[in-house]
Amino acid sequence: MELYRGNIIHTPERGRFEALEHGYLAVENGVIRGTYKELPTAYSGYPVTDYGEKLIIPGFHDMHVHAPQWCNAGMGFSMELLPWLNAYAFPAEAHFADPKFAEEEYRRFVNELIRQGTTSAVIFGSRHKEATRILIELLRKSGIRACVGKVNMDRNSIPELQETTGDSLRETEELVQWMQETRPGTDDRVQYMLTPRYVPCTTSELMEGLGRLAQEYDLPVQSHLDENLSEVAWVRELHPERKSFADVYDYYGLLRPGKTVMAHCIHMTEEEVALLQKKRITVAHCAMSNADLASGIMPLRKYLEKGLDVAIASDMGGSHSVNMREHIVDTIKCSKLYWFYHKEAAPVTFAESFSMATLTGENFFGKTGCFREGYAFDVLIINDESIQTGIEHDPLERLERFVYLGDSSCIEKRFVAGRECNPV
Amino acid sequence: MELYRGNIIHTPERGRFEALEHGYLAVENGVIRGTYKELPTAYSGYPVTDYGEKLIIPGFHDMHVHAPQWCNAGMGFSMELLPWLNAYAFPAEAHFADPKFAEEEYRRFVNELIRQGTTSAVIFGSRHKEATRILIELLRKSGIRACVGKVNMDRNSIPELQETTGDSLRETEELVQWMQETRPGTDDRVQYMLTPRYVPCTTSELMEGLGRLAQEYDLPVQSHLDENLSEVAWVRELHPERKSFADVYDYYGLLRPGKTVMAHCIHMTEEEVALLQKKRITVAHCAMSNADLASGIMPLRKYLEKGLDVAIASDMGGSHSVNMREHIVDTIKCSKLYWFYHKEAAPVTFAESFSMATLTGENFFGKTGCFREGYAFDVLIINDESIQTGIEHDPLERLERFVYLGDSSCIEKRFVAGRECNPV
Repeated sequence: MELYRGNIIHTPERGRFEALEHGYLAVENGVIRGTYKELPTAYSGYPVTDYGEKLIIPGFHDMHVHAPQWCNAGMGFSMELLPWLNAYAFPAEAHFADPKFAEEEYRRFVNELIRQGTTSAVIFGSRHKEATRILIELLRKSGIRACVGKVNMDRNSIPELQETTGDSLRETEELVQWMQETRPGTDDRVQYMLTPRYVPCTTSELMEGLGRLAQEYDLPVQSHLDENLSEVAWVRELHPERKSFADVYDYYGLLRPGKTVMAHCIHMTEEEVALLQKKRITVAHCAMSNADLASGIMPLRKYLEKGLDVAIASDMGGSHSVNMREHIVDTIKCSKLYWFYHKEAAPVTFAESFSMATLTGENFFGKTGCFREGYAFDVLIINDESIQTGIEHDPLERLERFVYLGDSSCIEKRFVAGRECNPV
Repeated sequence: MELYRGNIIHTPERGRFEALEHGYLAVENGVIRGTYKELPTAYSGYPVTDYGEKLIIPGFHDMHVHAPQWCNAGMGFSMELLPWLNAYAFPAEAHFADPKFAEEEYRRFVNELIRQGTTSAVIFGSRHKEATRILIELLRKSGIRACVGKVNMDRNSIPELQETTGDSLRETEELVQWMQETRPGTDDRVQYMLTPRYVPCTTSELMEGLGRLAQEYDLPVQSHLDENLSEVAWVRELHPERKSFADVYDYYGLLRPGKTVMAHCIHMTEEEVALLQKKRITVAHCAMSNADLASGIMPLRKYLEKGLDVAIASDMGGSHSVNMREHIVDTIKCSKLYWFYHKEAAPVTFAESFSMATLTGENFFGKTGCFREGYAFDVLIINDESIQTGIEHDPLERLERFVYLGDSSCIEKRFVAGRECNPV
């Protein structure tokens, strides 16, 4: 049994903070046994790691991020999605054909996630099998939780990234099998996720094949949906036989109940909203990217009211940061600007936004993101001395201030399942 | 004559970058004499400070920021402007009655400006004369350029901040005279700026008195205009005798041609736009604050097309950051989201946004913000090694990346008028 003391803050459920000033956290084998205002006498024999005035909070979850785009993030945002993909994202990803380049870049990427306090991430690789294998090895070494896959894309990209349908499916299956063969015991934090890029880049044959792999290996799936109006129109042209963008994925078995993440989802029809809700699809909300690429503002409040499962994501390099605190803030800011134009949609609160970037459900990373009994000890220790002033604030105000204006140097330690994560 | 070599980037005019890879900058007595691709033979005898691959860019200008609000920034943004002022901003400012508190907080504030690369700022103090005197002394010591004033507010605040009309005017004049008496020679970078809080906090008598002081001492003026719809409605109630919010200021002589900064200006009528244009008022655009406090999105493109002088501002603590790079980015992002709802208003470019945060006209800080001959050597040296990757980028792409995702540790040196600025 390990005991930790400090200012403990988490959201045991969406939108509700629980704060324990100078409280205790009991952990056994990396799993939380309880939080306490006073230490129970049963625990009095164990040593306590005392973090004093520091904050103990859950690590951040990033539900959609592109690992090979750290090298082009923050450039070319004068374009919208489709031209930007061809001018910036695809050429950057083409470099990952070179395993040496991939290793260096992916090391930078994984270390940047760790530096910013991300402890769980849903990750797109490039289309290259070897580079993705390297990414998976780095993620395993890092100790963070991840769902990750090589991207599948057999149409409408640049020549250097084009793959055949057959190669795409074969290499995907080889990676899945390699992960099974090399599984690191019971504490397995990285799992394969099928990663069709998005409908315009995947032929029907490829989507059918991926749907088959999903079934056969019981794999989770990630892709993009209804991000940009030109993209939506293009999908309609490519698949006039299907009812909607979402329906294309569904038809090929890629909306797996409780096992699929769809990024963006800005421009969904009512039917698509109903379909995602029925299938228990997780919507990855990318507020910063949706502004950077001028895609629009997602009707977040409406989705929450309809019961959709929404989680916050960086979508770096469609946005310019993997820092989830900035995405928590941009989620709030964009919901306010949306409210300004749609007065029926109340802005989201800090508690709602924080919980959507920490407590993202058990389907992808297991029990993590809050401090209820049975959840993993996936934790950040926050030392906010550098942003403290002459006015005293309570722990919840200090958390808000850290999220809004702190920087990564305030994150003193990162734990996943009770083990400290360090740069790889 | 001093010579500097490096990758020189600036906007000689709004919206147009000029980049000199491995170029030279000649400086005499803190003033730029020219930029050169090759060093002119006339200069060959002088030593060169060689910054190698580093970027040499203008320092940032912040055209509206509240010095006493660093201690409450990033908290309470679930509220809109009017309740937020009473719950957060005013109580924080009340602490500045204590000079010791003020000195510590203002030191933090000034150092944060310097750390983030701000070399010129238009600053609100609290209503306290002594605290504002301390702020002015710290600013003078820091070496950055500033227009600053104690705030005037004789109605509608909290009891601790209330001042009488007479005290407000007397203390203001005393500060103006003290600044004249203690002027530090010819290199005087800090000037007094009249600072009526905003119409709801200033009686007609106070505004009349301030108008008189403005005339008598030929002082610049700063205030808030058309930020929040409830505020606009309140001003209409308070001053039914005047045509508009802007007309109140104008009536009392506070829209001084070419000498006034008005912050926010989101909800202006066509008449107000015409008035500000006619009077050559500088609009301080506070995109982040306007999102944080759910005030709306300013129609930036429209104002630019109408020829208004618009500059970017942090409005910290109405926003959560004094980092002007974030405000350059938020200006672009908000213009894209605005475009999404108003397709006639093209988003602003990176070059436009960068120039609105550097090249803000001669009226307030003199000739600074670009590298044309006769402009001050107000410069940041950027070392972006920590954000470089395996793909090479040209200096302009590197600048964009630094602005979007760099941090203050990339700023290696800050010069104002050729002299290095350091924390106070």
